[in-house]
Amino acid sequence: MSTAFPQDSVGLVTPQVMHFAEPLALACGRSLADYQLIVETYGELNATASNAVLICHALSGHHHAAGYHSVDDRKPGWWDSCIGPGKPIDTNKFFVVSLNNLGGCNGSTGPSSVNPATGKPFGADFPVMTVEDWVHSQARLADNLGIQQWAAVIGGSLGGMQAMQWTISYPERVRHCLAIASAPKLSAQNIAFNEVARQAILTDPQFHGGHFQEQGVIPKRGLMLARMVGHITYLSDDAMGEKFGRGLKSEKLNYDFHSVEFQVESYLRYQGEEFSGRFDANTYLLMTKALDYFDPAAAFDGDLAKTLAHVSADFCVMSFTTDWRFSPARSREIVDALTAARKNVCYLEIDAPQGHDAFLMPIPRYLQAFESYMKRIKV
Amino acid sequence: MSTAFPQDSVGLVTPQVMHFAEPLALACGRSLADYQLIVETYGELNATASNAVLICHALSGHHHAAGYHSVDDRKPGWWDSCIGPGKPIDTNKFFVVSLNNLGGCNGSTGPSSVNPATGKPFGADFPVMTVEDWVHSQARLADNLGIQQWAAVIGGSLGGMQAMQWTISYPERVRHCLAIASAPKLSAQNIAFNEVARQAILTDPQFHGGHFQEQGVIPKRGLMLARMVGHITYLSDDAMGEKFGRGLKSEKLNYDFHSVEFQVESYLRYQGEEFSGRFDANTYLLMTKALDYFDPAAAFDGDLAKTLAHVSADFCVMSFTTDWRFSPARSREIVDALTAARKNVCYLEIDAPQGHDAFLMPIPRYLQAFESYMKRIKV
Repeated sequence: MSTAFPQDSVGLVTPQVMHFAEPLALACGRSLADYQLIVETYGELNATASNAVLICHALSGHHHAAGYHSVDDRKPGWWDSCIGPGKPIDTNKFFVVSLNNLGGCNGSTGPSSVNPATGKPFGADFPVMTVEDWVHSQARLADNLGIQQWAAVIGGSLGGMQAMQWTISYPERVRHCLAIASAPKLSAQNIAFNEVARQAILTDPQFHGGHFQEQGVIPKRGLMLARMVGHITYLSDDAMGEKFGRGLKSEKLNYDFHSVEFQVESYLRYQGEEFSGRFDANTYLLMTKALDYFDPAAAFDGDLAKTLAHVSADFCVMSFTTDWRFSPARSREIVDALTAARKNVCYLEIDAPQGHDAFLMPIPRYLQAFESYMKRIKV
Repeated sequence: MSTAFPQDSVGLVTPQVMHFAEPLALACGRSLADYQLIVETYGELNATASNAVLICHALSGHHHAAGYHSVDDRKPGWWDSCIGPGKPIDTNKFFVVSLNNLGGCNGSTGPSSVNPATGKPFGADFPVMTVEDWVHSQARLADNLGIQQWAAVIGGSLGGMQAMQWTISYPERVRHCLAIASAPKLSAQNIAFNEVARQAILTDPQFHGGHFQEQGVIPKRGLMLARMVGHITYLSDDAMGEKFGRGLKSEKLNYDFHSVEFQVESYLRYQGEEFSGRFDANTYLLMTKALDYFDPAAAFDGDLAKTLAHVSADFCVMSFTTDWRFSPARSREIVDALTAARKNVCYLEIDAPQGHDAFLMPIPRYLQAFESYMKRIKV
């Protein structure tokens, strides 16, 4: 490990690609003949494989959760604040597995991969994925790694939904579930925001029905708008106020339609622009659809307690006071259902001004609670 | 009046167009050589012109606030629940004036009007308007109608901002100000949502730099997206949940990117589609800019109490519990400043599930409070 990295970093990491030759049947009725997953691991799997932890990523996440890919990297993985030696997900204790989900655009099989049936990129022909599909694909990954049971499955937001689904689909394979800033299903407002993002992409003339890759273009404008609207929902009103307020970009107002007047406009445009250059539009559509579809209680007359009746994992549910995308009330629905189902659950509502994005931030109270919970997990 | 209309309707109304030949200097530094305003009035101006009430409209509003334009109209004006004989703004008592603001797209001079300098539509060359500009143009309208002082200036949302600005710009010309579901200035989050809407329009290839009229097209997709994102912010999470929940459009899920799965998606698409056919894209940009720019306290070191020191109107401020676009906290800022400035102010926070749109709804407690306040106005 290079001495250039912080002491509590997992240091240099190299992703590995794993091939799965067995067909995977999907919720949509279709199947993937074969696929690959790109994976990173941190720490060492112990002799009994009892110390494995799975990290599930959210909408725009990927396998690179901790450490650095090169000594020149300016930023570590997306959850580096929580994964590393001595950090809440302590790599001295745990063997941590992090993957890019199927349908992603960071190295796992997805819409930008070549469709073996046509020799061209899947594009919009890639099957729509559900949280359940991902969990099944992750179970095969566990098999491949020789992990019969996870010490914990952990995720924030859409990642928390996967963690919950694990306890339902494979109750005997998860000892602890940590669902952070998550929800048991999307509300109508959540779906509505996703629909705006999708329409922005779908109506972009450069989308070409999802086959833009073949045209050598990207639906940049649609992706930019989708990210902008998403980004607003990740931050709290207060956090935006604190960060930008009504601060102006220049000294005086321009009074026209196209100039950037306020700093918040400039920030949003930058976020949208940057994202549109690195993320696949079909993956974005697919991720929002997976969010919309997630509703494990639907098969149990909407009764979440009944849905969770057979889980055997212990739960840790955490939420953040100013998160309005998945508010604390949504986490309490999970907690109430677990309590009704007589399961062990710890719940913590963390006072944080950052909104939904708080789950990615090094907030002392959050890290402390996270660490305490992880410490009590026996391996 | 046709007997087909309800007893408490103002009945058939005919808008009138008024020309203003004097140049109007604007905040942006430019001026309009001459302009026209389209206006509706309801009730009778009394001999001393002491019973006149001005209605100011919000983002997508216009002059047609009450009554019907023809016996075949299926819907009355946008604030018909509040304006009419025996209604809160009682046309047996008041002479009500309602206009389409400058820059609008319903008959007043705006971006779709012909620019006398070029003989072509203004398009994006139409000057950006501010709330102050509107108030000055409305003051000329008052002059033309022989109204020296309004009994009340009334508005919701962006309309409430105009009502407030009236008391600041023309303190001697307003006796009562009713600012409903409004705010003393936009927050960073408010501006951010406006910016997404603007980018949707500006980046639509059919926008043609704001000169789409000359090309015989409209930036339909951009307007549709702008309206969709706006619409989400007009409704509360609860109201959307109540109205649509996770209700499906068809019996089963389609698992693709383009199908409408949930009713809320269908509703939003319809709202966007319908709006894009009737509203001008440049007017939409202009209205969001007017919202962003409004900040009367900016000239007083951000001190709203100081800003309001010289107003002489009495105030009625109303807000709605589930309004998250202009939350009750924003109305309380106005109330606190008025109190600090030792002005008369009534404040009512109405328990209503409808979100920001509540100000347009016939909510009994709201109508009752509105009526009580209007009844005490001496004419």
